[in-house]
Amino acid sequence: MELKNDLLLRTARGEQVERPPVWLMRQAGRILPQYRAIRSSLSGFKELVETPALAAEVTIQPVDELDVDAAIIFSDILVIPEAMGLPYELVEKKGPLFPKTIQNLQDVQALQSGENAAAELQYVFDALKLTKEGLNGRVPLIGFSGAPWTILSYMVEGSGSKTFSKAKKFLYTQPQAAHLLLQKITDTTIAYLKQKIKHGADLIQVFDSWAGILTPAQYRVFALPYIQQICEAIDEVPITVFAKGAWFILDDLKDVSCQTIGLDWNMNAALLRQQMGINKVFQGNLDPCQLYAPIKEIEQAALDMITNFGRKHIANLGHGVYPDTPLDGVKAFVNTVKNYSY
Amino acid sequence: MELKNDLLLRTARGEQVERPPVWLMRQAGRILPQYRAIRSSLSGFKELVETPALAAEVTIQPVDELDVDAAIIFSDILVIPEAMGLPYELVEKKGPLFPKTIQNLQDVQALQSGENAAAELQYVFDALKLTKEGLNGRVPLIGFSGAPWTILSYMVEGSGSKTFSKAKKFLYTQPQAAHLLLQKITDTTIAYLKQKIKHGADLIQVFDSWAGILTPAQYRVFALPYIQQICEAIDEVPITVFAKGAWFILDDLKDVSCQTIGLDWNMNAALLRQQMGINKVFQGNLDPCQLYAPIKEIEQAALDMITNFGRKHIANLGHGVYPDTPLDGVKAFVNTVKNYSY
Repeated sequence: MELKNDLLLRTARGEQVERPPVWLMRQAGRILPQYRAIRSSLSGFKELVETPALAAEVTIQPVDELDVDAAIIFSDILVIPEAMGLPYELVEKKGPLFPKTIQNLQDVQALQSGENAAAELQYVFDALKLTKEGLNGRVPLIGFSGAPWTILSYMVEGSGSKTFSKAKKFLYTQPQAAHLLLQKITDTTIAYLKQKIKHGADLIQVFDSWAGILTPAQYRVFALPYIQQICEAIDEVPITVFAKGAWFILDDLKDVSCQTIGLDWNMNAALLRQQMGINKVFQGNLDPCQLYAPIKEIEQAALDMITNFGRKHIANLGHGVYPDTPLDGVKAFVNTVKNYSY
Repeated sequence: MELKNDLLLRTARGEQVERPPVWLMRQAGRILPQYRAIRSSLSGFKELVETPALAAEVTIQPVDELDVDAAIIFSDILVIPEAMGLPYELVEKKGPLFPKTIQNLQDVQALQSGENAAAELQYVFDALKLTKEGLNGRVPLIGFSGAPWTILSYMVEGSGSKTFSKAKKFLYTQPQAAHLLLQKITDTTIAYLKQKIKHGADLIQVFDSWAGILTPAQYRVFALPYIQQICEAIDEVPITVFAKGAWFILDDLKDVSCQTIGLDWNMNAALLRQQMGINKVFQGNLDPCQLYAPIKEIEQAALDMITNFGRKHIANLGHGVYPDTPLDGVKAFVNTVKNYSY
């Protein structure tokens, strides 16, 4: 089906556009009363992820309510480890928890991977299909995955962490097992993303949420090569890499086969454009906390951001929107971008 | 009393030295069996902080066991909010918790500050005095505080946080109250550090642990000016500023009146030396997780670090040493530095 609004895709392909497209990471979530109504009727977050009709419904909600330029499928990056044989739970206010974790090479060898593992995630593909039908061509649909290092970090650590010292210890002490695990995650992720594209994803985003806790040397060995494999394999649609906190690796990302680079709120877009040249589109990077400010200040900050980025820019936050963000603040951000013209 | 080993101070003053001095952030702590023995006999971490004889004892333990070039007084950055009127608890495996937090201008106005507040911390000053006696001039004693932004972030947030979104919201929505609070923290910190110096601190380190979560613009408004006030006021001894994660502000730190800049493990020391010139000493920055690696790799990494930094370098980790780090790994790091000569 032809898209009525393909601004995101034209921008990601590097075409001249009239204004930056805009969407928000975590736009399908607690900021919307419609989402909270559905969520409160369910036993937990995973039920929402695993029920295609509901996942599709909450994916479309921000398009209805905020009139953003893209939908992003409601899901979780941790479906991948689960499909590989490591189930996760989501503990309210605590985050993800893996009852079983990866400790050694034998644990890694026992995991399934690639197309077999991806085939476990039919409920995600069904959700994409239903979302496409529901969107009826209004805006593009973004599919996503975690980057292999971030997925490994949860599989080894077993939960969120300030330091991810167990996961990093695994890299330092069992590099062979780490590389095998990263390769299995990569193979699964590629098969999974290809299925997502078959079921309607128009653009892919890879989230390397814990990029910033690796040393630059570790990132070059344990993270970047696997991201590059994914970017090379996904040639059907544009791809965005968001390596949160990894300012030290941006110069290397320049050479990765992705169209768009996500930036967090620490980054200076104008300076990066100078350093990295014009062959990448940037996405980001308003501080999510900026949306707590008075409306006038949000509008000014959004304009400053647009000016700072210049062209080849997808407007977004520098991180997922926080659940308690006032809806008026979110709308002020979106509308400021939508009313802009280059 | 004259110091038998003043390598740290000569380095911090920019003198030519024979090798980098070495110590570890959190060296007085769970990595040492001697520490764990004392800690397990007590009701909690705060009892250790608040009992001068015990605080002095654990401060000296790493000098005995590791033969490092400095002691750092065992204490906590959160004694400052407590002295200002906001008591904290330390919840095992969860971190700090403030039963009462700062919500608005009235809360800020109710806090005491400056010398009156610092006078509440006699137990810290007593611990310094006892430590100096116990060290008997073997190595210098480091005193420390949190940077005003980091202290504010706990006082507003009430606990640790991945996002510190409440604290950042406070900056965006109540900037006047935030500035008053930052000034009160700064005044208290200066009075506190001056007392620490009177009681024997030979060098001061200011920890801005949550520097990295501010935007560059916020850091310049809400963090840096208060750090500069502290650095200007402390002219008795050298001062180190460690703004963790704030790679984006290093160019500004160049102009702050401190002798030494702490670097985390993301930073490229050789590149920073090029960018920042030679007027600052750098401290850091081995990845604390590197100490989980095999001994030979730790030794090589320590040598690589020394080479990368060149002169004007205080060897340390890029963060506090993690509690489960093998003692042999810590010793391999320390001894590699001690056996080096320029």
